[in-house]
Amino acid sequence: MTFELTKDYLDRIQTAIDIGDEQTLRAEMDELYPADISGILYELETDSARYLLSLLDRGVGAEILANLDESDRGKFIASFTSKDLAPFVDQMDSDDAVDLLNEQSIQVREEVIGLLEDREQARFILDLLHYDEDVAGGLMQKELVKINVNTNVNQCIEEIRQQAENVEKVYAVYVVDEAGKLLGFVSLKKIVLARKYAKIADIYEDDVVSVETYRPVTEVAEIMRKYDLDAVPVVNVQGRLLGRITIDDVVDVITEQAEDDLQAISGLSGEVEEDDTIWVRAKAQLPWLIAGAMGSLMAATVINGFQHELSKVAALAAFIPIIGSTGGNVGIQTASLIVQSLADTSGLTATLGQRLLRTLVLALLNGAVVGLIAGCYTLLIGEPRLFPVVGLSLLAVVMLASFMGTVTPLLLSKIGINPAVASGPFITTANDLIGIGVYFLIADFLLAEL
Amino acid sequence: MTFELTKDYLDRIQTAIDIGDEQTLRAEMDELYPADISGILYELETDSARYLLSLLDRGVGAEILANLDESDRGKFIASFTSKDLAPFVDQMDSDDAVDLLNEQSIQVREEVIGLLEDREQARFILDLLHYDEDVAGGLMQKELVKINVNTNVNQCIEEIRQQAENVEKVYAVYVVDEAGKLLGFVSLKKIVLARKYAKIADIYEDDVVSVETYRPVTEVAEIMRKYDLDAVPVVNVQGRLLGRITIDDVVDVITEQAEDDLQAISGLSGEVEEDDTIWVRAKAQLPWLIAGAMGSLMAATVINGFQHELSKVAALAAFIPIIGSTGGNVGIQTASLIVQSLADTSGLTATLGQRLLRTLVLALLNGAVVGLIAGCYTLLIGEPRLFPVVGLSLLAVVMLASFMGTVTPLLLSKIGINPAVASGPFITTANDLIGIGVYFLIADFLLAEL
Repeated sequence: MTFELTKDYLDRIQTAIDIGDEQTLRAEMDELYPADISGILYELETDSARYLLSLLDRGVGAEILANLDESDRGKFIASFTSKDLAPFVDQMDSDDAVDLLNEQSIQVREEVIGLLEDREQARFILDLLHYDEDVAGGLMQKELVKINVNTNVNQCIEEIRQQAENVEKVYAVYVVDEAGKLLGFVSLKKIVLARKYAKIADIYEDDVVSVETYRPVTEVAEIMRKYDLDAVPVVNVQGRLLGRITIDDVVDVITEQAEDDLQAISGLSGEVEEDDTIWVRAKAQLPWLIAGAMGSLMAATVINGFQHELSKVAALAAFIPIIGSTGGNVGIQTASLIVQSLADTSGLTATLGQRLLRTLVLALLNGAVVGLIAGCYTLLIGEPRLFPVVGLSLLAVVMLASFMGTVTPLLLSKIGINPAVASGPFITTANDLIGIGVYFLIADFLLAEL
Repeated sequence: MTFELTKDYLDRIQTAIDIGDEQTLRAEMDELYPADISGILYELETDSARYLLSLLDRGVGAEILANLDESDRGKFIASFTSKDLAPFVDQMDSDDAVDLLNEQSIQVREEVIGLLEDREQARFILDLLHYDEDVAGGLMQKELVKINVNTNVNQCIEEIRQQAENVEKVYAVYVVDEAGKLLGFVSLKKIVLARKYAKIADIYEDDVVSVETYRPVTEVAEIMRKYDLDAVPVVNVQGRLLGRITIDDVVDVITEQAEDDLQAISGLSGEVEEDDTIWVRAKAQLPWLIAGAMGSLMAATVINGFQHELSKVAALAAFIPIIGSTGGNVGIQTASLIVQSLADTSGLTATLGQRLLRTLVLALLNGAVVGLIAGCYTLLIGEPRLFPVVGLSLLAVVMLASFMGTVTPLLLSKIGINPAVASGPFITTANDLIGIGVYFLIADFLLAEL
């Protein structure tokens, strides 16, 4: 039932564009959902894409522009004048319009707002531009149906009718008092089933979850997920209803957050995708690879400083990999669990002390197991004098890495940085470096012949 | 506006439970949403939690049981008899009921189904038990409102009224023909605004996205996200309407997928959380740590095999960390991008050949940069003869790791394993091991004095 883009199909569309066959193109696009047309636009050259967009219904075009990835959209509308943009912005939901305008220069932004035909939309946009994009205010849309508590179901239906064009998905009608303060809501289902002259005051639900404009979007996402909400009203500190956030936007937030985490852990900077150009990918990969290389070269300096020890006990070199990788692995594991626990706001939060204590005990256990395994290996290769060196080093490395894996994401999250970065190559390399230092110091201390 | 669980509050609840103060407990719980009560249950001992649950309205209790994490639920209802469970299962949405029953033994499952009072629910459950939990059929619920295409709006509202108790969120009414085949839908908004005697045939939307029962849930999630759907109807291969999947379940799928990916990359097996017991955490961490240690000890064996070379050129040991970590870092970066691209089904999919070609060029670039940096370092420490050894090794390591990072997730995904595993410590260690082998072979080949 869903559309799948093929090379053949794309070739046909490209040919139709090349010969300017508007009729075929209109007919083909008519069969597709806007999200599918976006998929086609991604694959076309900018000129072809623009031509195709110009053939579409303005509302469909607006929806497509609203849903393009930020980076692709930037490239795509780079050639648009403010006059080209305004008609699309006129048709967008206010939250999408603001997202798009926030990506433009201040000049373009103001020009476009000035050119909007829908003055209510212009007002909505000016309201929303105040908010940062990572708080509830920046995610909300102004389009919603609200009704005074002193009306009845019939008036409510009339209100829905008037707003029907603006508010694509209604979910519920919000109930407010004379001052615009949010009192509750009536679900659409209830309106369908209610008597025409039933008073809103008698049927509305006053038990409503709302969020304030300043709440971080990740918190909003967690709230909507936790309470299974389709839409959540956004209020100011006085409780006045200002807008609402719908679940589709939150799904996007969750998906992006997951991608950000994955990229942070993997050591990729910026938003990069597999099919980006080689140059874009190199720009995303190289900073971390270089940082990692620098760290490893610092480790090299440490190792070089112990050349005397290495020349006496050549087998010491053999354990450099296990020291390095164990520190990295433990650090990532621990940091990931903390990142995950930071994202989950239900239940009690552990104090730093409780966390560290638990981490310590666990590190002793993990370190002892890995240390013993490596220790047995020293016996296997006939170097029993290295048993205490390797065993103790691994114990120390696991404990240090567990500590860093616990503390770093907590610190990062405190100062507003994505804590998932703590699981990335930077921390892994740091653990690597510290581990090797600890290893050679312990060797120096324990081996009489050095 | 949302509830936050504090130690104080929890203490008060615990005291009320200890003295059996039902009135206070009922009053307090009445103020909370089921999701908040779940948060409290997580923190209580099983006996206290069970007592608290027994005081709640049966419907609320069912919702709470439906929303508990699988592992917590297992522990919590371990002491429940089939007779204890049945009344809750009676009240659950069919999809949640099936999830819970799938976690029980076959005996308990059949007993509970036999004890259900709601025979429609029993039929729903038996229908749904056929499906694997990772396909659309396993995620769908049977509760929905459907209507024959030959009815009118008034009859439709009557149908909604009859189903109102069963179907918490309606979103849309599905339109079917005599044979039960899905024809389209009417949104609730349209029903509110339509004339009472308007024919469904005249007002329904025939342009409906549906999914077949066998579609993987990740694909369903991607479809709902892409098309901004609140609910998607599920059909069999003949197009007959069997159930629907709602957005809240998909949000859970997306969140769990993200957690799974994070855990796979971080080398954690099983579903583990930071506040699990030390034993559970050790069980999740140790398998990967041990696997990583084994890999590193194989690297140790390789290094030991080159003791002769190391004793001649001691500085060779210094570059073991950069060889190992660069391979790991590049492997993770590449695999992550492939994982991400596998999850994104819009646009054209690159062929394996295209992917490998791009990867090759990129690897040459990345490898050259990292190789040059490390090469310069050899000059800095006065070991210019190591420049070609380290430089070429890094180039080779980056190319190998890029290749493995591309191919492994694609292979894993083909055989139905979470491709994110490819970014985990297993692959990192494999890259580490291969890298060190390559490094010493190149050294052997290039250094005349060995």
